[in-house]
Amino acid sequence: MPVKPDTARFLRDLHELRQIGKFKTGVHRPTYSPNDMVSREWLMRRMEEVGLVSEMDGVGNVLGRCKDDGPKLLVGSHIETQNEAGWLDGALGVMGALALARAGLPVDVVAFADEEGHFDCGFLGSRSAIGDLGEDEIDASVDRTRGTPLREALRAAGLEGRPRMRIDPARYKGYFEMHIEQGTALENAGERVGVVTGIVAIWQYRLIVEGRQDHAGGTTMAERRDAGLTAVRLLGEIDREFPRVCGERTTWTCGRIALDPGAPSVIPGRAEVLFQFRDVSIEVLQRLEATLRRLVQESNRREKCPVSIETLRKPMPAICDPAMMDALAAAAEELAPGAWRRMPSGAGHDAQNMAAIMPAAMLFTPSIGGISHHWAEDTKEEDLALGLEVLCAGAERFLKA
Amino acid sequence: MPVKPDTARFLRDLHELRQIGKFKTGVHRPTYSPNDMVSREWLMRRMEEVGLVSEMDGVGNVLGRCKDDGPKLLVGSHIETQNEAGWLDGALGVMGALALARAGLPVDVVAFADEEGHFDCGFLGSRSAIGDLGEDEIDASVDRTRGTPLREALRAAGLEGRPRMRIDPARYKGYFEMHIEQGTALENAGERVGVVTGIVAIWQYRLIVEGRQDHAGGTTMAERRDAGLTAVRLLGEIDREFPRVCGERTTWTCGRIALDPGAPSVIPGRAEVLFQFRDVSIEVLQRLEATLRRLVQESNRREKCPVSIETLRKPMPAICDPAMMDALAAAAEELAPGAWRRMPSGAGHDAQNMAAIMPAAMLFTPSIGGISHHWAEDTKEEDLALGLEVLCAGAERFLKA
Repeated sequence: MPVKPDTARFLRDLHELRQIGKFKTGVHRPTYSPNDMVSREWLMRRMEEVGLVSEMDGVGNVLGRCKDDGPKLLVGSHIETQNEAGWLDGALGVMGALALARAGLPVDVVAFADEEGHFDCGFLGSRSAIGDLGEDEIDASVDRTRGTPLREALRAAGLEGRPRMRIDPARYKGYFEMHIEQGTALENAGERVGVVTGIVAIWQYRLIVEGRQDHAGGTTMAERRDAGLTAVRLLGEIDREFPRVCGERTTWTCGRIALDPGAPSVIPGRAEVLFQFRDVSIEVLQRLEATLRRLVQESNRREKCPVSIETLRKPMPAICDPAMMDALAAAAEELAPGAWRRMPSGAGHDAQNMAAIMPAAMLFTPSIGGISHHWAEDTKEEDLALGLEVLCAGAERFLKA
Repeated sequence: MPVKPDTARFLRDLHELRQIGKFKTGVHRPTYSPNDMVSREWLMRRMEEVGLVSEMDGVGNVLGRCKDDGPKLLVGSHIETQNEAGWLDGALGVMGALALARAGLPVDVVAFADEEGHFDCGFLGSRSAIGDLGEDEIDASVDRTRGTPLREALRAAGLEGRPRMRIDPARYKGYFEMHIEQGTALENAGERVGVVTGIVAIWQYRLIVEGRQDHAGGTTMAERRDAGLTAVRLLGEIDREFPRVCGERTTWTCGRIALDPGAPSVIPGRAEVLFQFRDVSIEVLQRLEATLRRLVQESNRREKCPVSIETLRKPMPAICDPAMMDALAAAAEELAPGAWRRMPSGAGHDAQNMAAIMPAAMLFTPSIGGISHHWAEDTKEEDLALGLEVLCAGAERFLKA
């Protein structure tokens, strides 16, 4: 007889949490703000109610431990929010985890701190929990919006001096995380559940073009070494070539083009381009990088202005565990036949850090209009309930496998 | 018997003037600086020596009037310099004019103030002399480098309260100006004289692309409205199409591309591009503008991000007087057979303002290495002497025509 989660109670929990830091139809609970700390205390009480032993660590991670023996799952997400953002986002995954524990599954519930990256070290809670965050990084980190040093924020939140927890991978069969999609793929296809295949890695580069600064009047077109024009031509080549070599869900973005000196009558002597691409597959990422390098090489053979590539970030993508994905997929097909898909996550999640120490998988619910990180973010309640049921059935299948 | 200018004396004058504000092998005489005013007083004495009646007006224009009756020419340029700049530039044209007066030609010699545009109203001396500079513009103008208000600089230079002169076009058959090329066209071709066909007009535009700012992770390539990418594609089209419709010496330049918000992980929601082109022919300028508008129209049919064109400046080019050009060309062919060319000026000169009230023409001497607005600027002395001889012979031909 399969475990049935209490979807009504799960939705009531979500709405109760929504009242803490309410902003329009969304919430405002930046990391370590008074409302964020109220929500963490609230979460610990909910954990105790469902029979878990709760604790909060030195960076605000909240963990509720199951008292049972035997194989366990770690399930969760985060509960702080972006500024004036949506009510679901990470809260969905934490309330979902709580519902699984309430339904009697052997689950530890976790809410990692600052997944949203208010502080500039990024994913500080889950990175701390896998031993990937040094004290020096905490010393150096500040709030991106407010400039408050992380140490000061931790002190103000009453967390100073508390030990930081380490997640013990030996305790768990795997980590599940439910989250809103933050895109429109499910909605556009009329689907209700996404089984996440992996979390994209973002490979970031700075392309530097060296030309020769000259007066735009005296220098003929043939004589010029216009760094901006070389950058434009290279970006045009990328625009033409990347669709030939990319994966199905690859994205690539040029977010900044800076021409130096940037004056109307001066031929740019230097151009700097910020370029990134994202994919869940290491093969695709490597193919894209090889293409980028080939296009730069071709540009350097063709153009008078040499381009060099500076690699800014090249992390590994997080691949979801096949057995966990299959368990979620089987549950999705049972509960929403034909209305689900396998898909990568284009955004980062705590699951990518958990994936470094244990099998991990994620489940997406649709985002209405793809809106995310905005107070208007929302998901239909029947989709939230379905998501919980699929998560629960998938977790149960995986535990039994 | 043609008039023969004293080239040795002309070169001595140039070297004497070079001592005022000497900087390395160049000079530093910014407008209304003590050295600039010393050079203007020095010039007035030289004018008196060759029999002209000299005066300095309320913006520092220096005019030496010929006492003869009959048709006259106005000949000159400017004598202030860019900061730490070359010894020739405008000084060449003023010393050349002095040499013509010394040789007995009916010439008024003029040195217009601040052709170099230290003050932000631009060409203030020659614009004032044709009645194109209001008192309000003088009130508002400041030194671009030092921030000094123009009024304050005029007071410090002892010019406050002096009347501003107006050039009377009825007094002259035309205006001649000799200048260094500030480019490499003559040098590359092994030629020694340029007969200027006109002074380019600079047509300037701001291209504004409206897209939709989105997260670079969640938004698929097909869903995006990337304003930066539309800008890159349009600039690529301009790069391909402009060579098909441009004139022989047209230049076009994109000096700035600003993507908003300019962050690595955000799809640009807006792009602003500064774009300009220069030509001496109004037909070419109009054809280029039509091409630009066609490419924007095509972009707007093809792309999801609309582009709009804001016209910033669209002045008329200054066409040199055909009879004056022919006189210079005949003199050049006589004195330097096969070693001269007709060519446009890619930079602005006082002649463009004189062209608004009387026939005007210019003659270029080669610039070694194309260096300009730098203390290393130079021209071979035999080319300087030849330039003077061509100017003199051309002026005489035109006077007799």
